[in-house]
Formats: sequence, C-alpha cells, structure tokens
Amino acid sequence: MSNSDKALSFAIKARAGTARAGLLRTLHGDIQTPAFVPVGTKAGVKGILPEQLRALGAQVVLANTYHLYLQPGEKIIEEAGGLAKFMGWEKMTEDGAKHGPTMTDSGGFQVFSLGAAFGRTITKIAKGEELTNEQAENRRVSVYDEDVQTKHGQLAVIDDEGVTFTSHLDGSLHRFTPERSIEIQHALGADMFFAFDECTGPTEPYEYQKEAMRRTHRWALRSLKAHRQNLAANRAQSIFGIVQGGRHEDLRSESAQEIASMDFDGFGIGGSFSKEDMHGALEAAVKYLPEEKPRHFLGIGEPGDILTGIAQGMDLFDCVAATRIGRHGTIYTKRGPINLTNEKFKNDFTPLDPEVLVPGTESFTRGYLSHLFRAKEMLGPIIASMHNVGFIIQLVDGAREAILNDTFEQYRADFMRDYYA
Amino acid sequence: MSNSDKALSFAIKARAGTARAGLLRTLHGDIQTPAFVPVGTKAGVKGILPEQLRALGAQVVLANTYHLYLQPGEKIIEEAGGLAKFMGWEKMTEDGAKHGPTMTDSGGFQVFSLGAAFGRTITKIAKGEELTNEQAENRRVSVYDEDVQTKHGQLAVIDDEGVTFTSHLDGSLHRFTPERSIEIQHALGADMFFAFDECTGPTEPYEYQKEAMRRTHRWALRSLKAHRQNLAANRAQSIFGIVQGGRHEDLRSESAQEIASMDFDGFGIGGSFSKEDMHGALEAAVKYLPEEKPRHFLGIGEPGDILTGIAQGMDLFDCVAATRIGRHGTIYTKRGPINLTNEKFKNDFTPLDPEVLVPGTESFTRGYLSHLFRAKEMLGPIIASMHNVGFIIQLVDGAREAILNDTFEQYRADFMRDYYA
Repeated sequence: MSNSDKALSFAIKARAGTARAGLLRTLHGDIQTPAFVPVGTKAGVKGILPEQLRALGAQVVLANTYHLYLQPGEKIIEEAGGLAKFMGWEKMTEDGAKHGPTMTDSGGFQVFSLGAAFGRTITKIAKGEELTNEQAENRRVSVYDEDVQTKHGQLAVIDDEGVTFTSHLDGSLHRFTPERSIEIQHALGADMFFAFDECTGPTEPYEYQKEAMRRTHRWALRSLKAHRQNLAANRAQSIFGIVQGGRHEDLRSESAQEIASMDFDGFGIGGSFSKEDMHGALEAAVKYLPEEKPRHFLGIGEPGDILTGIAQGMDLFDCVAATRIGRHGTIYTKRGPINLTNEKFKNDFTPLDPEVLVPGTESFTRGYLSHLFRAKEMLGPIIASMHNVGFIIQLVDGAREAILNDTFEQYRADFMRDYYA
Repeated sequence: MSNSDKALSFAIKARAGTARAGLLRTLHGDIQTPAFVPVGTKAGVKGILPEQLRALGAQVVLANTYHLYLQPGEKIIEEAGGLAKFMGWEKMTEDGAKHGPTMTDSGGFQVFSLGAAFGRTITKIAKGEELTNEQAENRRVSVYDEDVQTKHGQLAVIDDEGVTFTSHLDGSLHRFTPERSIEIQHALGADMFFAFDECTGPTEPYEYQKEAMRRTHRWALRSLKAHRQNLAANRAQSIFGIVQGGRHEDLRSESAQEIASMDFDGFGIGGSFSKEDMHGALEAAVKYLPEEKPRHFLGIGEPGDILTGIAQGMDLFDCVAATRIGRHGTIYTKRGPINLTNEKFKNDFTPLDPEVLVPGTESFTRGYLSHLFRAKEMLGPIIASMHNVGFIIQLVDGAREAILNDTFEQYRADFMRDYYA
C-alpha cells in the first residue's frame, strides 16, 4: 500500500547521536517523540482521569489486550466505539476531529505471567491436552500449592499454533493465537497495537530463548498477515512487530534483523532482560531497526532506563511503575525516589518535589500526602500517581527539548548525577 | 463586638415561603446559599481533588474534628497553615486573597459513634473511672465481643464535664470537653465550626434525650465562651450552636429557643431523628432560630431531605452519602438512584445521567463505570463520587435559582415526582 494510505506516519525532526526527536501522526492526533505512554491496563489509568492525563502532558495511552479480552470482553469495547471512546479519552477537537491516540499490547506478556501465575485457583493442563471448561473446572488447584508453583511452566501451555492459558480471574480456560490476538486488537480499535509474541523470563536458558524467539518471528508474520488481510482495520490501525531474544546480544540482533525485514508500521523491543544486560541487548537490536519507523521500548519506566533508551534511539516508553509505586506512597523526585509514608515527612510542608512541579498537584505537600497515606485516603494514591506520571512525562519532554537543542547528553548526565546521587 | 468585626456575615437575598436564598461571606470567600457542603472527613473529599470540587461547584468543604484530632493531630494542621491550606483547598485569587471556605464539625457525633463502636479493639471503661493509657491497654477487648456490644453505651463515658472515649484507630483513651473541642477547632482553623454537643441515637428514651439535650445546652455555653475568650480565633473563625432534641418536637422547640438565645454566629440542627419524624422536628426547631443567621442541617444528604430542609428555611447541608454510595457503584439520577454494577448496565453507553450532566464526568458512560466497578479500578469510585457530589450541588443550586425566581415549590414538586416515581 502507498504511504498515504497508512494510518500512521513518522518523521524525525532532530538527532543527537543515536537519540532522535520525531513526530508520530495517528488518525487520533499527533505524538511528539520521545514520549512516555501512561498505562491504562484495564482501559483506565489507575486513579487518573483522561482530562488529568492531558493536563499532565500525556499524548497517548496504552491498554492491555489480555485484561480487556477477559473483562469486559472486546465485543463490549467495540460496541462502545473502541478503546479511546470507551474510556473517555477520545475527545472532539474544535474542528470536529476525534482526538486521543491509543495503543494496545498483544497480551503475550500477561498470558505468560498473569494467566499462569497470579490466579487464586488455576487449572493444571499438560502439553497437547485439550480440555473443555468443565473438565478444566474439575482440575482446578490453588496456585499457591507448592506442587503447582514448581510446574509453573505447565500452566500456560505453548505450542507452535498459540498458547492455552487459564484466566487469573476465574481459572477458566482460554486460547490465544496470533490471529486471535489481532482479531481482539482490531475490536479494541487502538491506533497502534502489537504482534502476538512469546514472552520468556530473563532466566530461561539460551536454547529456550532462541526457540521462543523463532516462534515469536513466525507469530509476527502471522500477526502481520492477519492485520493486512483486514482492509478496514488496516486503514484505521497500525501494527508493531516485537523484537525478543532475552539478554543475549546475538539473539537480539537476529531477532531485530528478522522482525525489521517484515512490513511492520513500527517496532517494539520486549523487555526481557535484567538491568545490567539492557544496554547491550538494546544496542544489538536497535542498529538493525529501520531509522524511519517508530520504536517502542515495552514496559520500561525507570527514569534512568528511559534515558538510556532515548539515547539509543527509542521513541516510545510505557510502564506501570509510575502509578504502581505511587499507589504505595513512593514518588519520583529530581533527587531520587522518596517514600512519603516515612515518619520524617509528617510535617514536611514543602511541595512533593520542589524542583519538579507537576500540573494539578502543585498545591499539595509531602506532609499532606503522608497524612493521606496513613489515613488510607484514596487521594493519596491519586495525587502520588499523578505526580509520578507527570514527572516521567516531564523527564521525557525535557529529553525531547534537549535533542532539539542538541544538548541531550548534558541533559541526561545532569539528571543521572542528581537522581542517582 | 460590632458586626463589622465578625468573621462571617449573612444576608438573605430572596424568600419563597420559609425557604430562603442568601449570601454567606467568610474571610475565605463567599457562599451562595442554600449550599451543599461536600464532606472531607479526614481533610480530603474521598476521591475528589480540590480543583475538581471547584469545577463541580463546591463552595465550601466540611472536615471532621474527631478524625483530624486523632490523625494527623491538630498541631500538624495548624503548623501547615490550617485546614484549607493543609488539604490544598485554599487558593490565591487574582487579587491576592486566600480563597477556600471550610467548616469543621465538633467531633461530638464521631466520639459517640466511631469512638465507641467501630474500632477493632477498644477499652472497657465505666462511669467515673479514670485510667492511664497503660491501664486502658490492659483492658482492651474486641469490639466484636458480644459482651462488649451489649455494653456499648459504656465505651464512650459521658459526664457533665465532657466525654471519655477510645480511639477507633488504636483503642487509646482520649477525652473531649467543650473547651478541648474548641481548642482543637481553633487549631484546625476552619472559617465555621460547631459547638461540642452530645449526639444521642434516635432510639434513646425521651428522658435521656432531654437529659442529653440539656447537657448539650450547657456545653454550648461553654463552647461559646471558650471561643469568644480567644480573641485571635474569634476574629478569624465563627461558631455555630447545635440544636438537639431527637425526634421530639417539644424538645426540639426547647432546644432551639435555648440555643437561639446564645450569641452564636450561626446554628446547626443535629440530625438525630428518623426520616418520618424529620419534618415535624425540623419545623418545631426552625421557627425559633433568628432569621438573620445561617442554618446548617447536619448530616442530611438524601435529595428529598435536602429539599425538605430548604423548604423549611435551612441554608447549608453536609453529608457523606454522595461519596459513600458512589464508592459502592450507586449514582443519583433525576429518575432515582441506580446501581451501576447491575448486569443491565454492562453495554449501556449512555451518559451516567442523560438529564444531569456533571462537569468532568460527561465523557463517561454507564457501561464504562460498570466495567470499572467490576474490574475494581479506582476510577469507578472516583467518577461515581464526582457525579454524585455534582448532582447534589446542581440540585441545591437549582433550588437557589428557583427561590430567586419564586418557583421553588414547583421546582421541588417536579424533582420529587421524577426522583421518587
């Protein structure tokens, strides 16, 4: 298809080394990159309303295919007019256009983690088994049984066609294939979504990482084909391929070359590596990705890691950490994270971070939030989540400005010096 | 003191029968009455930020003396600059004035209910006993013991000087007198606060209601004296006396005459009566209250009850119901309350109440909230609470408009017909 038919366009506006500042255009509005993408797992960023997200500077929101498939079900969201409209993030602009870019991940990560591990009871299944839900019901066991935990890998059963897994909500049996994941993501209707991939744990052995990566490549092709064959969806939505390969640089390079050779609209890099391996694994992958397409670093939200990603040429970042740590009383500050439930903040009436004021939270003090968390008031998690999302957005916005001004390396060095002092 | 020295002024702008529309001026801004006062028990309206409250039309917020005394302690709030500033409700206006009117109740209601009933463990004390906290600690019992529940009345022990009670947080022993309640409320620094009263349950016998009422009158005088003697507080804050007397019209009349004879800046009517007795008890009291001072109906929030109160000449209303029922999935609509967790709302993509759009919640549908509540997402309680507070504010604002236009009885009749159809 010609470029003008695409639902997405991307143009690089400035470079600073391998870092780049770009403009990503979706049918629901523009995104200045690099950009932080707040996560609204279940079609809502926890504790933050869409209007507040806009005020915080959010340009795009990412929701989760696995969660929305299970609850409320993709049909409900389709009936509501798609994810952006369902969650109240879509907004009419003055010229009558619909604004509110969205993304969905493929559900791969959650199928392999939540689907298998976090339910109160789950169904034990073995490779090759086909169970009815009734049979599955009779085989429910507590996920906390030692026996089950040691057989963890058996709870989401992978074959070359797809993966069979149990719902973390009720233990019911489900199956995702690349085609099914794409079908669900078409119903959800996000501007950008991801190919279905197999997410391995960073501790899996090399041979298994390679096997899973190659399966991910086959699933990427099937995901891409399923999308391109749906002409209506293809006009409205864009698909990103995912590079896997764990912490191994050779696998990351192989995966990047393979995925880059496919006609994806953008690329994601799956975050299955430990912190110390991130730089190398990322570098090994990024160099093979086409310059002219957007790149999303999946599940990365630690401030320093985001700046590392930007330095290496990544454009988009999503992570639940900002809201998750906020709900537990920890906020980012320019001088590193602090936990407001600490006794010393009880009568500290300075702003949350005197050096980084976040729109909508400027009037609150550390002492007030310390009280709210002690008193178990909802406003504590709400305000801390807003602060953290705003903090990360400002960090990434600052990086974009610095790239445009060609001062990015200084910006990064300054931030790292203060934050990790 | 001359009227110009007062921290509060009140002027009636229009009447419709006994209903009235007025202007209440505090040192932190004006309040158009009748007005609904959202409750921020622990210095925060549950789930709603100060800026959102303003957008909903809230003019004043009420917090709770008992809760704030226990946590974080009134000294912390005083050090923070007072309640309005502590909770981020105080705002600088363009001309440099501080805006954000606040009220505190006296703690009486909570001392007698929460202090006695809801703690996980409490200390058993008998009339006349004086315990150290250490002794109290040794006498801790579970509040759920049948033995304790039947001796409920012994857990907050009243004498003519004050009341000794146990904290619902940790079972520690505390004592409030009228003078101590006023001292705490001076530290909290709200524009308007209440005299310390004894709150009886509506089922207490007549003789006890009378005894408690007369004690409340003595405590009212002591509260008033404690306030007027503190010249600085007296210049900054105003004190409201509370009429008690349960459901008995003769006691309500006696109490109103007695409290009205004292130099209070305004008056509260305590809500210790059942729904069917409300109208008579209110009427028996209101006729003895001076026309020119504001009247607050304590703890009344049911839409019909608010309109009854307005019709009878009440000016201010506070209630936790709007946020409490909202947190559990129930929203007010013009056609009566609905519970959004009901199956039938799953794919109902109409606004929360198509007839009453509330600022900040217009973009959300019943189906979306139904999903949020099922998925246990914080946004469910947040949006439902906003809707309900906005709904009640619009109801009361509409009543004010109707009084000004002399159409109040029609307004009330129309609302009651639709809401209770």
